[in-house]
Amino acid sequence: MATNARITLVNPNSLVKVTEAIGRAVLPFGHLPLDFRCLTSTDGPAGIQTQAEADASIAPMARLVRQEAAATDAFIVACFSDPGLHGLRDLVPVPVLGIGECSVLTAMSIGTRVGVIAIASAAVPRHLRYFRAMGVADRICGELALDMQVSQLADADLAFQRMAAVGKTLRDGHGADVLIMGCAGMADLRARLEDACGLPVVEPTQAAVAMAVGRVAGRA
Amino acid sequence: MATNARITLVNPNSLVKVTEAIGRAVLPFGHLPLDFRCLTSTDGPAGIQTQAEADASIAPMARLVRQEAAATDAFIVACFSDPGLHGLRDLVPVPVLGIGECSVLTAMSIGTRVGVIAIASAAVPRHLRYFRAMGVADRICGELALDMQVSQLADADLAFQRMAAVGKTLRDGHGADVLIMGCAGMADLRARLEDACGLPVVEPTQAAVAMAVGRVAGRA
Amino acid sequence: MATNARITLVNPNSLVKVTEAIGRAVLPFGHLPLDFRCLTSTDGPAGIQTQAEADASIAPMARLVRQEAAATDAFIVACFSDPGLHGLRDLVPVPVLGIGECSVLTAMSIGTRVGVIAIASAAVPRHLRYFRAMGVADRICGELALDMQVSQLADADLAFQRMAAVGKTLRDGHGADVLIMGCAGMADLRARLEDACGLPVVEPTQAAVAMAVGRVAGRA
Amino acid sequence: MATNARITLVNPNSLVKVTEAIGRAVLPFGHLPLDFRCLTSTDGPAGIQTQAEADASIAPMARLVRQEAAATDAFIVACFSDPGLHGLRDLVPVPVLGIGECSVLTAMSIGTRVGVIAIASAAVPRHLRYFRAMGVADRICGELALDMQVSQLADADLAFQRMAAVGKTLRDGHGADVLIMGCAGMADLRARLEDACGLPVVEPTQAAVAMAVGRVAGRA
Amino acid sequence: MATNARITLVNPNSLVKVTEAIGRAVLPFGHLPLDFRCLTSTDGPAGIQTQAEADASIAPMARLVRQEAAATDAFIVACFSDPGLHGLRDLVPVPVLGIGECSVLTAMSIGTRVGVIAIASAAVPRHLRYFRAMGVADRICGELALDMQVSQLADADLAFQRMAAVGKTLRDGHGADVLIMGCAGMADLRARLEDACGLPVVEPTQAAVAMAVGRVAGRA
Amino acid sequence: MATNARITLVNPNSLVKVTEAIGRAVLPFGHLPLDFRCLTSTDGPAGIQTQAEADASIAPMARLVRQEAAATDAFIVACFSDPGLHGLRDLVPVPVLGIGECSVLTAMSIGTRVGVIAIASAAVPRHLRYFRAMGVADRICGELALDMQVSQLADADLAFQRMAAVGKTLRDGHGADVLIMGCAGMADLRARLEDACGLPVVEPTQAAVAMAVGRVAGRA
Repeated sequence: MATNARITLVNPNSLVKVTEAIGRAVLPFGHLPLDFRCLTSTDGPAGIQTQAEADASIAPMARLVRQEAAATDAFIVACFSDPGLHGLRDLVPVPVLGIGECSVLTAMSIGTRVGVIAIASAAVPRHLRYFRAMGVADRICGELALDMQVSQLADADLAFQRMAAVGKTLRDGHGADVLIMGCAGMADLRARLEDACGLPVVEPTQAAVAMAVGRVAGRA
Repeated sequence: MATNARITLVNPNSLVKVTEAIGRAVLPFGHLPLDFRCLTSTDGPAGIQTQAEADASIAPMARLVRQEAAATDAFIVACFSDPGLHGLRDLVPVPVLGIGECSVLTAMSIGTRVGVIAIASAAVPRHLRYFRAMGVADRICGELALDMQVSQLADADLAFQRMAAVGKTLRDGHGADVLIMGCAGMADLRARLEDACGLPVVEPTQAAVAMAVGRVAGRA
Repeated sequence: MATNARITLVNPNSLVKVTEAIGRAVLPFGHLPLDFRCLTSTDGPAGIQTQAEADASIAPMARLVRQEAAATDAFIVACFSDPGLHGLRDLVPVPVLGIGECSVLTAMSIGTRVGVIAIASAAVPRHLRYFRAMGVADRICGELALDMQVSQLADADLAFQRMAAVGKTLRDGHGADVLIMGCAGMADLRARLEDACGLPVVEPTQAAVAMAVGRVAGRA
Repeated sequence: MATNARITLVNPNSLVKVTEAIGRAVLPFGHLPLDFRCLTSTDGPAGIQTQAEADASIAPMARLVRQEAAATDAFIVACFSDPGLHGLRDLVPVPVLGIGECSVLTAMSIGTRVGVIAIASAAVPRHLRYFRAMGVADRICGELALDMQVSQLADADLAFQRMAAVGKTLRDGHGADVLIMGCAGMADLRARLEDACGLPVVEPTQAAVAMAVGRVAGRA
Repeated sequence: MATNARITLVNPNSLVKVTEAIGRAVLPFGHLPLDFRCLTSTDGPAGIQTQAEADASIAPMARLVRQEAAATDAFIVACFSDPGLHGLRDLVPVPVLGIGECSVLTAMSIGTRVGVIAIASAAVPRHLRYFRAMGVADRICGELALDMQVSQLADADLAFQRMAAVGKTLRDGHGADVLIMGCAGMADLRARLEDACGLPVVEPTQAAVAMAVGRVAGRA
Repeated sequence: MATNARITLVNPNSLVKVTEAIGRAVLPFGHLPLDFRCLTSTDGPAGIQTQAEADASIAPMARLVRQEAAATDAFIVACFSDPGLHGLRDLVPVPVLGIGECSVLTAMSIGTRVGVIAIASAAVPRHLRYFRAMGVADRICGELALDMQVSQLADADLAFQRMAAVGKTLRDGHGADVLIMGCAGMADLRARLEDACGLPVVEPTQAAVAMAVGRVAGRA
């Protein structure tokens, strides 16, 4: 009897709550004959806002990925900045996908002008450099940040209202016809955000899971 | 009991043999809880080489897609030039994916420089305009055509040898680190081509099926 | 005695009123020793707003163009989206020009930043894909739509006022130093729009006629 | 009785032979109801190969253009590098067109990949900077120089053979489907070069005349 | 005993006051073992606002540069539009740097999105063509002009207030994380502008001096 | 008495020999009133060929940079891939420059088409992603690797011959008019390579030192 292909998602920061939220993003794929695992990079930084934090997450994640390589058929780096993505591909023989890359590629198959909702404005230049490195910057019509205090982010309703407002600005002021949630762990809000903005919304973890399914299922 | 999501692949040309080859590309996904159908656009042109033939395939395919819309959860246009892709999205409420678009996006998640193997050189400028329209032309390091006589293409071994030679030229002369088969219906040769060239090879129908799986599974 | 070179403009939609307006765009060229004809693609859609309508216009126009090929020295596709342009070039041995392409190229010889006035916002992503395919998207500083109700468009003064307002926004907010009317059939308003906006305005049918004159006159 | 519109071509170098060759490029347009004049910038450099020579041609040409402005309806700068083009537009109220710019724009309405044949390799980086400034560098698939000795260029047959060889290299090695003669004064060879290469060939002076015809005729 | 390397800055306009202001920009480098000279191109235009004026400055500057070539180890063209930069490189064997080019390159080593403050809006399209020619237009997030009357510019406080306001608009509305003063002769205001805007500010003459120091010092 | 400004170069790999070679690159700047230090990141990888090694070098280098921040006025990351460059800028208040970035920016002030000589072909895709992220990929006409065995690299003459051969291929086959040595520690060969290829050659450490001199000297 064939065993299921295994997809391992790695949260590069050490926050278990974020890993749990990543796990909820995977739920809609649960009926597929695949095994999903969501791991926390417990030696990673407590959060990834700056480029320095993104860089600092790479070494512990690399150790984790190497250690789990024998037990997985595809890895997903579950942070929108895809820290270490190309380097991890050097380290393990199985596919490594990044939720940032996959979300942009997926959005490009849905709409013509892609708007990105960032949590913090500090991430925007880093994302811009990444979109350029991917060669897709011309497809991004804008990226705007919520720019809320941490205390405000804790208020789910307030956070959602701000997210919807930013999404509408991307739609009306920048011409976005598809939106990306520029952060892991917000899958719970995807459907509501689609309704509020009247646009398709790509949740990056789900975009990466889908492309990982393709990579492992197509080879089964 | 939940019914399976349904994915409908449409061959825009009228050649049943091509539709059958498209069907074989889907086989590796057969174990997923999804229903796949491969339809032939029987009023389409007998083949798609020129832009005029690509254009001529749109109207009959549009009729077919409209007619089947109630019976499907996602369509796939199974021709590398994605004829009519954006227009079909205007016509039906479910996702419509193109194998050309999905293959490029998938290749971009695997390598840095994408090489494309075309059947006929007449297709190359058309593909180039399409890569530009997608905003990804900078990721394509080269596209080369087999440029074989039809009689030669019928000889599978000869065709494969030529395909492998073109792939190696893209690798060595253009720096490709991932290849795309720029045509539907050649999935049978994918694994052999990977071995011959020592590079990952994206088969466009499989790339589109994978992304379609993501679109329908993620929403289940 | 040499006969005049013949230029045939094809309106890909079935509205005779639009064909008549296209005819008025040609009037300033009437003193040239050339024969102009404006044909209606009577089997085309009643109007072209969506990509699906643009695509649907191709097959009937292709029949018309083939049928008239012996009687013309150059064709002009007289719809700003240039439906089927490259495919028609496959079908007939004479030059085929598109008013969208020619208007952008002409505007590029006049100003540095090109602003485009669209009728409906549904056309904007389609035009954007086209500008990208042409490799000129960096020259377009913005495209904005009138977004008026059909009933409002019928009121010529109201339509002109809206067009002038959009032109001024492109000038002041987007830095446009040349404007394109992103639709066939509005030549009557060109001079007024130039005056209102203080910028050169390219009328696409006239831009295409001029380039067609060059193609046929230069070979006489 | 209406007088004809007047188009003035300026040869920015002081070689009368080049001005005469420019005059021959205009001949096919002679049946149009337009007055053409070809002027020599007698204080210009004896030829334009380097950027310094192109720059040195601007001041004398500017004096000439100002002096002739009252007597013309459109100017054409008849050097492929379009020296001073944008500055001249500041100086006179009538349209000023450049044969370099017009040839590229015209080629873009004919083919997908534009190949340019330069006389001297010293011009290639200058042209490249210009194509970038125009925002069209992605449409140029290659520019190659004849790189012949002046004595060899004087041998018309030898020069043509070399030109045809370069054109074929652009076609076969770079994928060009349209060629531009990257120099004024070679119109006599256009038709032969088309035959030799099997590709459409744009002669830049003729391209500019055609676009100038459009500018003045359309306003008559 | 080794003599100091000599760096010659040329003000292409004839205003001695501007040359003096350029001299003040060099002061912070005065402790280096280098000889700096600031020359006025006395036959140049009285100011450079339009492209025509920029072009007109080239011929007299070329004479000056040739004449001083034996007495210098590197030239700096001290006008943000870098008139004649590439041509001057043809004329003299020593490095020729432009303050426009060097300021953009330097800004690219400091921030991700570069905002440019122009004096007059007439310069903006010229600068844009130049940024494109340099292949760096994607790094410029916006250029805005002070657009003040000459009489207002004479009021230093008013001019600074306007400059700071434009800098803040580039920061807040265009996402600039580094600013360039798009004009020679404003070094006195650099530090104040940094404070007012909270962003690093590149003064173009200083950027060019720094790169020239590298060119001559590294070869000593 | 003013103290000299201090510039600290960090070799992100642990090879002291490489640090020594970096030190030799700084020698021509020794007469400037600046203090230079070259540090080895002793916990870094033994060399940087793959992306994984580049990533692995960041964490130890970040510790070193933080520790030395109080004792320096500018840091230089002395590896052509600029590992961690943007993140380090988050960590310390003084300028951080990368030799890769500075070498490309410097080459752009010298020539029109930049050719890069890499040590190993594994680095080429990484560099390409970086050039794209910088927004300068259009200026790079080609990057080719020496692709020698380690044993061959140890033979200085053999290595130089191969480097000169690659430089000539970039010049003749790719049109390069300026070359970059795509690796730290090869300054000894710069002048010889210029002579062999007849093109200016940018040594990246020297390019970064020059720009750092500008950053600290201009503020003194």
